[in-house]
Amino acid sequence: MHGFLESIKANKERTGSTLCVGLDPDLDKIPLHFPKTPKGVKEFLLEIIDATQEYCVAYKPNISFFEALGIEGLKVLENICHRIDKRIPIIIDGKRGDIGNTSKMQAKFMFDYFGASACTVNPYMGEDSVSPFFDYKDKFVFVLALTSNNGANDFQRLELGNQRYLYEDVFSRCIEWNKNYKNVGVVVGATQSQLIYLRKLDPSLVFLIPGVGAQGGSYQFASQNGNNSDGLSLINVSRQILYADPEFTDTKRIIKTTIQTLLNS
Amino acid sequence: MHGFLESIKANKERTGSTLCVGLDPDLDKIPLHFPKTPKGVKEFLLEIIDATQEYCVAYKPNISFFEALGIEGLKVLENICHRIDKRIPIIIDGKRGDIGNTSKMQAKFMFDYFGASACTVNPYMGEDSVSPFFDYKDKFVFVLALTSNNGANDFQRLELGNQRYLYEDVFSRCIEWNKNYKNVGVVVGATQSQLIYLRKLDPSLVFLIPGVGAQGGSYQFASQNGNNSDGLSLINVSRQILYADPEFTDTKRIIKTTIQTLLNS
Repeated sequence: MHGFLESIKANKERTGSTLCVGLDPDLDKIPLHFPKTPKGVKEFLLEIIDATQEYCVAYKPNISFFEALGIEGLKVLENICHRIDKRIPIIIDGKRGDIGNTSKMQAKFMFDYFGASACTVNPYMGEDSVSPFFDYKDKFVFVLALTSNNGANDFQRLELGNQRYLYEDVFSRCIEWNKNYKNVGVVVGATQSQLIYLRKLDPSLVFLIPGVGAQGGSYQFASQNGNNSDGLSLINVSRQILYADPEFTDTKRIIKTTIQTLLNS
Repeated sequence: MHGFLESIKANKERTGSTLCVGLDPDLDKIPLHFPKTPKGVKEFLLEIIDATQEYCVAYKPNISFFEALGIEGLKVLENICHRIDKRIPIIIDGKRGDIGNTSKMQAKFMFDYFGASACTVNPYMGEDSVSPFFDYKDKFVFVLALTSNNGANDFQRLELGNQRYLYEDVFSRCIEWNKNYKNVGVVVGATQSQLIYLRKLDPSLVFLIPGVGAQGGSYQFASQNGNNSDGLSLINVSRQILYADPEFTDTKRIIKTTIQTLLNS
Protein backbone atom coordinates (compact mmCIF):
# COMPACT_ATOMS: atom_id res chain seq x y z
CA MET A 1 0.00 0.00 0.00
CA HIS A 2 1.24 3.52 -0.87
CA GLY A 3 2.62 5.46 2.10
CA PHE A 4 -0.07 8.11 1.78
CA LEU A 5 -2.78 5.46 1.97
CA GLU A 6 -1.05 3.79 4.93
CA SER A 7 -1.40 7.13 6.75
CA ILE A 8 -5.06 7.45 5.79
CA LYS A 9 -5.65 3.90 7.00
CA ALA A 10 -3.90 4.57 10.32
CA ASN A 11 -5.91 7.74 10.76
CA LYS A 12 -9.15 5.95 9.95
CA GLU A 13 -8.33 3.47 12.71
CA ARG A 14 -7.65 6.37 15.06
CA THR A 15 -10.77 8.42 14.21
CA GLY A 16 -13.30 5.88 12.97
CA SER A 17 -14.07 7.85 9.80
CA THR A 18 -12.51 8.97 6.54
CA LEU A 19 -13.34 12.63 7.12
CA CYS A 20 -11.04 15.14 5.45
CA VAL A 21 -11.29 18.73 6.67
CA GLY A 22 -11.05 21.37 3.98
CA LEU A 23 -9.16 24.46 5.08
CA ASP A 24 -10.74 27.20 2.96
CA PRO A 25 -10.46 30.42 4.94
CA ASP A 26 -12.81 33.09 3.64
CA LEU A 27 -12.45 36.59 5.16
CA ASP A 28 -16.17 37.16 4.70
CA LYS A 29 -16.98 34.14 6.84
CA ILE A 30 -14.37 33.84 9.56
CA PRO A 31 -15.77 34.59 13.02
CA LEU A 32 -15.68 38.26 14.02
CA HIS A 33 -13.45 37.16 16.90
CA PHE A 34 -10.53 37.11 14.43
CA PRO A 35 -9.10 40.10 12.58
CA LYS A 36 -9.69 39.97 8.83
CA THR A 37 -5.98 39.76 8.10
CA PRO A 38 -3.57 36.96 7.20
CA LYS A 39 -2.60 36.82 10.89
CA GLY A 40 -6.26 36.49 11.87
CA VAL A 41 -6.70 33.72 9.32
CA LYS A 42 -3.72 31.88 10.72
CA GLU A 43 -5.04 32.08 14.28
CA PHE A 44 -8.46 30.95 13.11
CA LEU A 45 -7.05 27.95 11.23
CA LEU A 46 -4.84 26.90 14.12
CA GLU A 47 -7.97 26.85 16.33
CA ILE A 48 -9.83 24.86 13.68
CA ILE A 49 -6.97 22.36 13.42
CA ASP A 50 -6.86 22.06 17.20
CA ALA A 51 -10.61 21.40 17.25
CA THR A 52 -10.67 18.90 14.36
CA GLN A 53 -7.45 16.87 14.43
CA GLU A 54 -8.92 14.11 16.56
CA TYR A 55 -11.71 13.54 14.02
CA CYS A 56 -10.06 13.71 10.61
CA VAL A 57 -7.77 11.59 8.46
CA ALA A 58 -6.38 14.44 6.36
CA TYR A 59 -6.49 18.20 5.80
CA LYS A 60 -7.21 19.68 2.41
CA PRO A 61 -6.29 23.36 2.20
CA ASN A 62 -7.54 24.85 -1.04
CA ILE A 63 -4.62 27.07 -2.03
CA SER A 64 -6.92 29.59 -3.76
CA PHE A 65 -8.28 30.84 -0.45
CA PHE A 66 -4.75 31.63 0.68
CA GLU A 67 -3.83 33.17 -2.68
CA ALA A 68 -6.81 35.52 -2.36
CA LEU A 69 -4.96 37.07 0.61
CA GLY A 70 -1.88 37.56 -1.53
CA ILE A 71 1.64 36.51 -0.67
CA GLU A 72 0.95 36.96 3.06
CA GLY A 73 -1.85 34.44 2.65
CA LEU A 74 0.50 31.91 1.08
CA LYS A 75 2.84 32.39 4.04
CA VAL A 76 -0.07 31.38 6.26
CA LEU A 77 -0.51 28.21 4.20
CA GLU A 78 3.20 27.47 4.51
CA ASN A 79 3.03 27.98 8.26
CA ILE A 80 -0.09 25.87 8.63
CA CYS A 81 1.56 23.04 6.68
CA HIS A 82 4.37 23.02 9.23
CA ARG A 83 2.01 23.15 12.19
CA ILE A 84 -0.29 20.24 11.30
CA ASP A 85 0.46 17.00 13.17
CA LYS A 86 2.82 14.97 10.96
CA ARG A 87 0.55 11.91 11.25
CA ILE A 88 -2.19 13.76 9.35
CA PRO A 89 -1.42 14.11 5.63
CA ILE A 90 -2.00 17.37 3.80
CA ILE A 91 -3.65 17.42 0.38
CA ILE A 92 -3.18 20.76 -1.32
CA ASP A 93 -6.16 21.40 -3.53
CA GLY A 94 -4.83 23.45 -6.43
CA LYS A 95 -6.31 21.68 -9.49
CA ARG A 96 -3.09 22.26 -11.42
CA GLY A 97 -1.98 20.92 -14.80
CA ASP A 98 -0.15 22.51 -17.74
CA ILE A 99 2.29 21.50 -20.47
CA GLY A 100 4.87 19.08 -19.07
CA ASN A 101 7.76 21.40 -18.25
CA THR A 102 5.31 23.75 -16.48
CA SER A 103 3.57 20.97 -14.55
CA LYS A 104 7.00 20.03 -13.18
CA MET A 105 7.18 23.52 -11.68
CA GLN A 106 3.70 23.14 -10.21
CA ALA A 107 4.60 19.80 -8.63
CA LYS A 108 7.70 21.40 -7.10
CA PHE A 109 5.52 24.05 -5.44
CA MET A 110 3.00 21.57 -4.03
CA PHE A 111 5.37 18.80 -2.98
CA ASP A 112 8.84 20.29 -2.48
CA TYR A 113 7.96 23.75 -1.25
CA PHE A 114 4.86 23.12 0.87
CA GLY A 115 5.74 19.50 1.55
CA ALA A 116 2.17 18.36 0.84
CA SER A 117 1.57 14.60 0.77
CA ALA A 118 -0.92 14.90 -2.06
CA CYS A 119 -2.52 17.38 -4.42
CA THR A 120 -5.31 17.69 -6.96
CA VAL A 121 -4.87 18.10 -10.73
CA ASN A 122 -7.12 18.93 -13.68
CA PRO A 123 -6.97 16.43 -16.57
CA TYR A 124 -8.08 18.66 -19.46
CA MET A 125 -4.58 18.98 -20.91
CA GLY A 126 -4.00 15.21 -20.89
CA GLU A 127 -1.44 12.74 -19.65
CA ASP A 128 1.71 14.79 -20.18
CA SER A 129 0.16 17.55 -18.06
CA VAL A 130 -0.39 15.32 -15.03
CA SER A 131 2.43 12.74 -15.21
CA PRO A 132 5.02 15.16 -13.74
CA PHE A 133 2.95 14.96 -10.55
CA PHE A 134 2.75 11.15 -10.72
CA ASP A 135 6.55 11.08 -11.01
CA TYR A 136 6.72 11.97 -7.32
CA LYS A 137 6.46 8.34 -6.25
CA ASP A 138 6.04 9.03 -2.53
CA LYS A 139 3.27 11.58 -3.14
CA PHE A 140 -0.35 10.99 -4.11
CA VAL A 141 -2.32 12.75 -6.85
CA PHE A 142 -6.08 13.15 -7.20
CA VAL A 143 -7.32 13.79 -10.74
CA LEU A 144 -10.65 15.61 -11.24
CA ALA A 145 -13.13 13.18 -12.78
CA LEU A 146 -16.70 14.20 -11.88
CA THR A 147 -16.81 17.29 -9.71
CA SER A 148 -19.48 18.32 -7.23
CA ASN A 149 -20.59 21.60 -8.88
CA ASN A 150 -23.35 22.28 -11.42
CA GLY A 151 -20.71 23.05 -14.03
CA ALA A 152 -19.87 19.33 -14.04
CA ASN A 153 -22.81 19.05 -16.47
CA ASP A 154 -21.21 21.34 -19.04
CA PHE A 155 -18.30 19.23 -20.24
CA GLN A 156 -17.70 16.30 -17.87
CA ARG A 157 -21.10 14.83 -18.74
CA LEU A 158 -20.81 15.26 -22.49
CA GLU A 159 -21.64 12.00 -24.20
CA LEU A 160 -18.86 10.43 -26.24
CA GLY A 161 -21.33 8.15 -27.98
CA ASN A 162 -22.74 4.80 -26.76
CA GLN A 163 -23.88 6.40 -23.50
CA ARG A 164 -20.28 6.84 -22.45
CA TYR A 165 -19.40 10.21 -20.96
CA LEU A 166 -16.25 12.29 -20.73
CA TYR A 167 -15.89 11.77 -16.96
CA GLU A 168 -15.92 7.99 -17.54
CA ASP A 169 -13.12 8.32 -20.01
CA VAL A 170 -11.12 10.41 -17.55
CA PHE A 171 -11.91 7.85 -14.86
CA SER A 172 -10.72 4.98 -17.08
CA ARG A 173 -7.47 6.79 -17.78
CA CYS A 174 -7.02 7.25 -14.03
CA ILE A 175 -7.36 3.49 -13.56
CA GLU A 176 -4.58 2.97 -16.13
CA TRP A 177 -2.42 5.71 -14.62
CA ASN A 178 -2.83 4.21 -11.18
CA LYS A 179 -1.78 0.80 -12.54
CA ASN A 180 1.37 2.37 -13.94
CA TYR A 181 2.22 4.87 -11.23
CA LYS A 182 0.49 3.45 -8.09
CA ASN A 183 -0.22 6.91 -6.72
CA VAL A 184 -3.29 8.13 -8.58
CA GLY A 185 -6.76 8.70 -7.14
CA VAL A 186 -9.81 10.55 -8.45
CA VAL A 187 -12.08 13.37 -7.39
CA VAL A 188 -15.76 12.42 -7.52
CA GLY A 189 -18.39 14.70 -5.99
CA ALA A 190 -20.65 13.42 -3.20
CA THR A 191 -23.48 15.21 -5.02
CA GLN A 192 -23.12 12.83 -8.00
CA SER A 193 -25.17 9.62 -8.03
CA GLN A 194 -22.71 8.25 -10.63
CA LEU A 195 -20.30 7.78 -7.75
CA ILE A 196 -21.92 4.35 -7.22
CA TYR A 197 -21.33 3.34 -10.82
CA LEU A 198 -17.73 4.62 -10.84
CA ARG A 199 -16.96 2.68 -7.67
CA LYS A 200 -18.11 -0.50 -9.40
CA LEU A 201 -15.82 0.13 -12.37
CA ASP A 202 -12.78 -0.18 -10.15
CA PRO A 203 -12.73 -1.42 -6.57
CA SER A 204 -9.30 -0.08 -5.62
CA LEU A 205 -8.99 3.50 -6.89
CA VAL A 206 -9.16 5.96 -3.99
CA PHE A 207 -11.85 8.64 -4.20
CA LEU A 208 -11.46 12.14 -2.86
CA ILE A 209 -15.08 13.14 -2.37
CA PRO A 210 -15.97 16.83 -2.00
CA GLY A 211 -19.48 18.22 -1.79
CA VAL A 212 -20.60 17.03 1.64
CA GLY A 213 -22.12 19.71 3.86
CA ALA A 214 -22.68 23.17 2.38
CA GLN A 215 -22.85 21.72 -1.14
CA GLY A 216 -25.58 19.27 -0.14
CA GLY A 217 -23.89 15.85 -0.36
CA SER A 218 -24.26 13.21 2.35
CA TYR A 219 -21.36 11.69 4.28
CA GLN A 220 -23.10 8.34 4.64
CA PHE A 221 -23.82 8.15 0.91
CA ALA A 222 -20.19 9.03 0.12
CA SER A 223 -18.79 6.55 2.61
CA GLN A 224 -21.08 3.63 1.79
CA ASN A 225 -20.62 4.02 -1.93
CA GLY A 226 -17.22 5.63 -2.22
CA ASN A 227 -14.90 3.63 0.03
CA ASN A 228 -12.53 1.36 -1.87
CA SER A 229 -11.92 -2.32 -1.17
CA ASP A 230 -9.61 -1.35 1.70
CA GLY A 231 -12.36 0.79 3.22
CA LEU A 232 -10.52 3.97 2.23
CA SER A 233 -11.70 7.29 0.82
CA LEU A 234 -11.34 10.95 1.65
CA ILE A 235 -14.65 12.62 2.29
CA ASN A 236 -14.14 16.32 2.43
CA VAL A 237 -16.10 18.90 4.38
CA SER A 238 -14.97 22.52 4.47
CA ARG A 239 -17.48 25.30 5.16
CA GLN A 240 -19.86 23.39 7.38
CA ILE A 241 -17.09 22.61 9.85
CA LEU A 242 -15.01 25.80 9.57
CA TYR A 243 -17.90 28.14 10.12
CA ALA A 244 -19.93 25.95 12.51
CA ASP A 245 -19.54 28.46 15.34
CA PRO A 246 -19.80 32.02 13.97
CA GLU A 247 -19.58 33.46 17.49
CA PHE A 248 -16.48 31.40 18.25
CA THR A 249 -17.47 31.02 21.89
CA ASP A 250 -17.71 27.27 22.34
CA THR A 251 -15.99 26.13 19.20
CA LYS A 252 -14.50 22.78 20.23
CA ARG A 253 -17.84 21.50 21.45
CA ILE A 254 -19.81 22.89 18.53
CA ILE A 255 -17.36 21.48 15.98
CA LYS A 256 -17.48 18.09 17.71
CA THR A 257 -21.29 18.07 17.54
CA THR A 258 -21.26 19.30 13.94
CA ILE A 259 -18.87 16.53 12.90
CA GLN A 260 -20.94 13.89 14.72
CA THR A 261 -24.06 15.11 12.91
CA LEU A 262 -22.20 15.26 9.59
CA LEU A 263 -20.84 11.72 9.91
CA ASN A 264 -24.41 10.48 10.36
CA SER A 265 -25.85 12.64 7.59
CA MET B 1 -13.85 47.15 -28.25
CA HIS B 2 -12.84 45.83 -24.82
CA GLY B 3 -10.14 47.88 -23.10
CA PHE B 4 -7.71 44.96 -23.11
CA LEU B 5 -8.12 44.57 -26.86
CA GLU B 6 -7.71 48.32 -27.36
CA SER B 7 -4.31 47.98 -25.69
CA ILE B 8 -3.36 45.00 -27.83
CA LYS B 9 -4.42 46.93 -30.91
CA ALA B 10 -2.37 49.99 -29.90
CA ASN B 11 0.62 47.78 -29.21
CA LYS B 12 0.23 46.02 -32.53
CA GLU B 13 0.37 49.43 -34.21
CA ARG B 14 3.48 50.26 -32.20
CA THR B 15 5.33 46.98 -32.83
CA GLY B 16 3.93 45.67 -36.09
CA SER B 17 3.21 42.21 -34.67
CA THR B 18 0.98 40.42 -32.15
CA LEU B 19 3.89 38.82 -30.34
CA CYS B 20 3.34 38.02 -26.67
CA VAL B 21 6.44 37.22 -24.63
CA GLY B 22 6.04 34.42 -22.11
CA LEU B 23 7.93 35.06 -18.89
CA ASP B 24 8.70 31.54 -17.70
CA PRO B 25 11.91 31.74 -15.69
CA ASP B 26 13.51 28.32 -15.25
CA LEU B 27 16.52 28.15 -12.91
CA ASP B 28 18.00 25.36 -15.02
CA LYS B 29 18.00 27.59 -18.08
CA ILE B 30 18.71 31.16 -16.99
CA PRO B 31 22.12 32.38 -18.14
CA LEU B 32 25.00 31.60 -15.76
CA HIS B 33 25.49 35.35 -15.52
CA PHE B 34 22.57 35.44 -13.02
CA PRO B 35 22.53 33.79 -9.59
CA LYS B 36 20.05 30.91 -9.36
CA THR B 37 17.96 32.72 -6.76
CA PRO B 38 14.71 34.71 -6.83
CA LYS B 39 16.83 37.87 -6.97
CA GLY B 40 18.77 36.49 -9.94
CA VAL B 41 15.48 35.62 -11.66
CA LYS B 42 14.20 39.13 -11.11
CA GLU B 43 17.33 40.70 -12.60
CA PHE B 44 17.16 38.30 -15.53
CA LEU B 45 13.50 39.10 -16.23
CA LEU B 46 14.03 42.84 -15.98
CA GLU B 47 16.75 42.51 -18.62
CA ILE B 48 14.45 40.40 -20.79
CA ILE B 49 11.67 42.96 -20.45
CA ASP B 50 14.08 45.73 -21.33
CA ALA B 51 15.17 43.81 -24.42
CA THR B 52 11.68 42.81 -25.60
CA GLN B 53 9.25 45.61 -24.75
CA GLU B 54 9.67 47.35 -28.09
CA TYR B 55 8.64 44.18 -29.95
CA CYS B 56 5.72 42.74 -27.98
CA VAL B 57 2.04 43.50 -27.43
CA ALA B 58 1.74 41.72 -24.08
CA TYR B 59 3.65 39.73 -21.46
CA LYS B 60 2.44 36.36 -20.28
CA PRO B 61 4.15 35.26 -17.07
CA ASN B 62 3.25 31.65 -16.28
CA ILE B 63 2.76 31.82 -12.53
CA SER B 64 3.94 28.23 -12.06
CA PHE B 65 7.54 29.16 -12.81
CA PHE B 66 7.42 31.72 -10.01
CA GLU B 67 5.64 29.34 -7.64
CA ALA B 68 8.43 26.80 -8.18
CA LEU B 69 10.72 29.29 -6.41
CA GLY B 70 8.32 29.47 -3.48
CA ILE B 71 6.92 32.60 -1.93
CA GLU B 72 10.05 34.57 -2.83
CA GLY B 73 9.36 33.65 -6.45
CA LEU B 74 5.83 35.03 -6.23
CA LYS B 75 7.28 38.26 -4.85
CA VAL B 76 9.36 38.46 -8.02
CA LEU B 77 6.19 38.09 -10.09
CA GLU B 78 4.50 40.83 -8.06
CA ASN B 79 7.49 43.09 -8.57
CA ILE B 80 7.71 42.34 -12.29
CA CYS B 81 4.01 43.16 -12.67
CA HIS B 82 4.69 46.62 -11.22
CA ARG B 83 7.75 47.17 -13.38
CA ILE B 84 6.30 46.38 -16.80
CA ASP B 85 5.37 49.45 -18.88
CA LYS B 86 1.69 50.15 -18.19
CA ARG B 87 0.95 50.27 -21.93
CA ILE B 88 1.80 46.57 -22.22
CA PRO B 89 -0.89 44.33 -20.70
CA ILE B 90 0.01 41.38 -18.49
CA ILE B 91 -1.71 38.04 -18.94
CA ILE B 92 -1.09 35.77 -15.97
CA ASP B 93 -1.10 32.20 -17.18
CA GLY B 94 -2.42 30.17 -14.27
CA LYS B 95 -5.03 27.90 -15.91
CA ARG B 96 -7.30 28.27 -12.89
CA GLY B 97 -10.89 27.15 -12.36
CA ASP B 98 -12.72 25.58 -9.40
CA ILE B 99 -16.18 25.60 -7.85
CA GLY B 100 -17.66 29.09 -7.98
CA ASN B 101 -16.82 30.42 -4.52
CA THR B 102 -13.22 29.21 -4.97
CA SER B 103 -12.87 30.65 -8.49
CA LYS B 104 -13.80 34.01 -7.01
CA MET B 105 -10.73 33.73 -4.79
CA GLN B 106 -8.58 32.80 -7.78
CA ALA B 107 -9.83 35.80 -9.75
CA LYS B 108 -9.01 38.05 -6.79
CA PHE B 109 -5.42 36.79 -6.81
CA MET B 110 -4.93 37.28 -10.56
CA PHE B 111 -6.78 40.55 -11.02
CA ASP B 112 -6.88 42.37 -7.67
CA TYR B 113 -3.61 41.25 -6.15
CA PHE B 114 -1.30 41.10 -9.16
CA GLY B 115 -3.34 43.58 -11.17
CA ALA B 116 -3.11 41.43 -14.30
CA SER B 117 -5.17 42.58 -17.30
CA ALA B 118 -6.00 39.02 -18.27
CA CYS B 119 -5.54 35.42 -17.22
CA THR B 120 -6.05 31.88 -18.46
CA VAL B 121 -8.62 29.39 -17.12
CA ASN B 122 -9.31 25.68 -17.55
CA PRO B 123 -12.90 24.82 -18.59
CA TYR B 124 -13.13 21.24 -17.26
CA MET B 125 -15.34 22.22 -14.30
CA GLY B 126 -17.80 24.13 -16.48
CA GLU B 127 -19.41 27.53 -16.64
CA ASP B 128 -19.77 28.22 -12.92
CA SER B 129 -16.03 27.60 -12.53
CA VAL B 130 -15.04 30.26 -15.06
CA SER B 131 -17.81 32.88 -14.81
CA PRO B 132 -16.35 34.46 -11.64
CA PHE B 133 -13.42 35.49 -13.86
CA PHE B 134 -15.75 36.82 -16.57
CA ASP B 135 -17.47 38.92 -13.90
CA TYR B 136 -14.42 41.20 -13.91
CA LYS B 137 -15.74 43.27 -16.78
CA ASP B 138 -12.56 45.27 -17.34
CA LYS B 139 -10.38 42.15 -17.41
CA PHE B 140 -10.00 39.56 -20.15
CA VAL B 141 -10.10 35.78 -19.79
CA PHE B 142 -8.64 33.12 -22.08
CA VAL B 143 -10.24 29.69 -21.80
CA LEU B 144 -8.22 26.62 -22.78
CA ALA B 145 -9.78 25.06 -25.86
CA LEU B 146 -7.16 23.13 -27.85
CA THR B 147 -3.74 23.27 -26.22
CA SER B 148 -0.34 22.95 -27.87
CA ASN B 149 0.90 19.80 -26.10
CA ASN B 150 0.60 16.12 -27.06
CA GLY B 151 -1.79 15.59 -24.16
CA ALA B 152 -4.36 17.63 -26.13
CA ASN B 153 -5.08 14.33 -27.89
CA ASP B 154 -6.13 12.57 -24.69
CA PHE B 155 -9.38 14.37 -23.86
CA GLN B 156 -9.70 17.56 -25.91
CA ARG B 157 -9.85 15.51 -29.12
CA LEU B 158 -12.34 12.95 -27.89
CA GLU B 159 -15.16 12.62 -30.37
CA LEU B 160 -18.62 13.52 -29.11
CA GLY B 161 -20.26 11.78 -32.05
CA ASN B 162 -20.84 13.15 -35.58
CA GLN B 163 -17.16 14.05 -35.91
CA ARG B 164 -17.55 16.75 -33.31
CA TYR B 165 -14.85 16.92 -30.68
CA LEU B 166 -14.67 18.10 -27.10
CA TYR B 167 -12.49 21.11 -27.94
CA GLU B 168 -15.13 22.25 -30.44
CA ASP B 169 -17.77 22.12 -27.78
CA VAL B 170 -15.56 24.14 -25.43
CA PHE B 171 -14.91 26.57 -28.27
CA SER B 172 -18.65 26.95 -28.97
CA ARG B 173 -19.31 27.66 -25.31
CA CYS B 174 -16.59 30.31 -25.42
CA ILE B 175 -18.38 31.99 -28.33
CA GLU B 176 -21.57 32.09 -26.22
CA TRP B 177 -19.72 33.30 -23.14
CA ASN B 178 -18.05 36.04 -25.15
CA LYS B 179 -21.45 37.12 -26.49
CA ASN B 180 -22.71 37.41 -22.91
CA TYR B 181 -19.66 38.76 -21.15
CA LYS B 182 -17.63 40.45 -23.94
CA ASN B 183 -14.31 39.54 -22.35
CA VAL B 184 -13.70 35.91 -23.29
CA GLY B 185 -10.99 34.59 -25.59
CA VAL B 186 -9.62 31.10 -26.21
CA VAL B 187 -6.30 29.31 -26.06
CA VAL B 188 -5.54 27.41 -29.28
CA GLY B 189 -2.08 25.94 -29.85
CA ALA B 190 -0.01 27.02 -32.85
CA THR B 191 0.88 23.35 -33.24
CA GLN B 192 -2.76 22.50 -34.05
CA SER B 193 -3.91 22.58 -37.69
CA GLN B 194 -7.51 22.84 -36.37
CA LEU B 195 -6.70 26.46 -35.58
CA ILE B 196 -7.75 27.25 -39.18
CA TYR B 197 -11.10 25.55 -38.74
CA LEU B 198 -11.77 27.16 -35.35
CA ARG B 199 -10.99 30.60 -36.77
CA LYS B 200 -13.66 30.02 -39.41
CA LEU B 201 -16.26 29.11 -36.79
CA ASP B 202 -16.07 32.59 -35.31
CA PRO B 203 -14.33 35.59 -36.84
CA SER B 204 -14.19 37.74 -33.70
CA LEU B 205 -13.07 35.57 -30.78
CA VAL B 206 -9.49 36.44 -29.78
CA PHE B 207 -6.99 33.58 -29.79
CA LEU B 208 -4.10 33.30 -27.37
CA ILE B 209 -1.77 31.05 -29.32
CA PRO B 210 1.05 29.26 -27.49
CA GLY B 211 3.39 26.72 -29.01
CA VAL B 212 5.52 28.89 -31.31
CA GLY B 213 9.27 28.40 -30.96
CA ALA B 214 10.52 25.61 -28.68
CA GLN B 215 7.24 23.70 -29.11
CA GLY B 216 7.54 23.75 -32.90
CA GLY B 217 4.69 26.03 -34.02
CA SER B 218 5.16 28.76 -36.63
CA TYR B 219 4.46 32.46 -36.02
CA GLN B 220 3.39 33.03 -39.61
CA PHE B 221 0.94 30.13 -39.51
CA ALA B 222 -0.49 31.39 -36.22
CA SER B 223 -0.77 34.96 -37.43
CA GLN B 224 -2.20 34.25 -40.88
CA ASN B 225 -4.77 31.81 -39.54
CA GLY B 226 -5.32 32.97 -36.00
CA ASN B 227 -5.85 36.73 -36.21
CA ASN B 228 -9.46 37.77 -35.72
CA SER B 229 -11.41 40.13 -37.96
CA ASP B 230 -9.72 43.10 -36.24
CA GLY B 231 -6.31 41.60 -36.99
CA LEU B 232 -5.80 40.73 -33.33
CA SER B 233 -4.35 37.68 -31.61
CA LEU B 234 -1.72 36.96 -28.99
CA ILE B 235 1.02 34.73 -30.31
CA ASN B 236 3.14 33.62 -27.43
CA VAL B 237 6.81 32.71 -27.43
CA SER B 238 8.59 31.96 -24.17
CA ARG B 239 11.69 29.78 -24.15
CA GLN B 240 13.05 30.64 -27.56
CA ILE B 241 13.24 34.33 -26.65
CA LEU B 242 14.15 34.08 -22.96
CA TYR B 243 17.06 31.75 -23.49
CA ALA B 244 18.20 33.09 -26.86
CA ASP B 245 21.53 34.23 -25.43
CA PRO B 246 22.82 31.67 -22.91
CA GLU B 247 26.06 33.62 -22.44
CA PHE B 248 24.15 36.86 -21.86
CA THR B 249 26.85 38.89 -23.53
CA ASP B 250 25.02 40.60 -26.36
CA THR B 251 21.46 39.98 -25.32
CA LYS B 252 19.60 42.93 -26.77
CA ARG B 253 21.01 42.32 -30.21
CA ILE B 254 20.55 38.53 -30.06
CA ILE B 255 16.96 38.85 -28.83
CA LYS B 256 16.20 41.35 -31.59
CA THR B 257 17.54 38.95 -34.22
CA THR B 258 15.74 35.99 -32.64
CA ILE B 259 12.44 37.86 -32.68
CA GLN B 260 12.92 38.96 -36.29
CA THR B 261 13.62 35.34 -37.28
CA LEU B 262 10.63 34.13 -35.22
CA LEU B 263 8.22 36.61 -36.77
CA ASN B 264 9.17 35.30 -40.20
CA SER B 265 9.07 31.65 -39.18
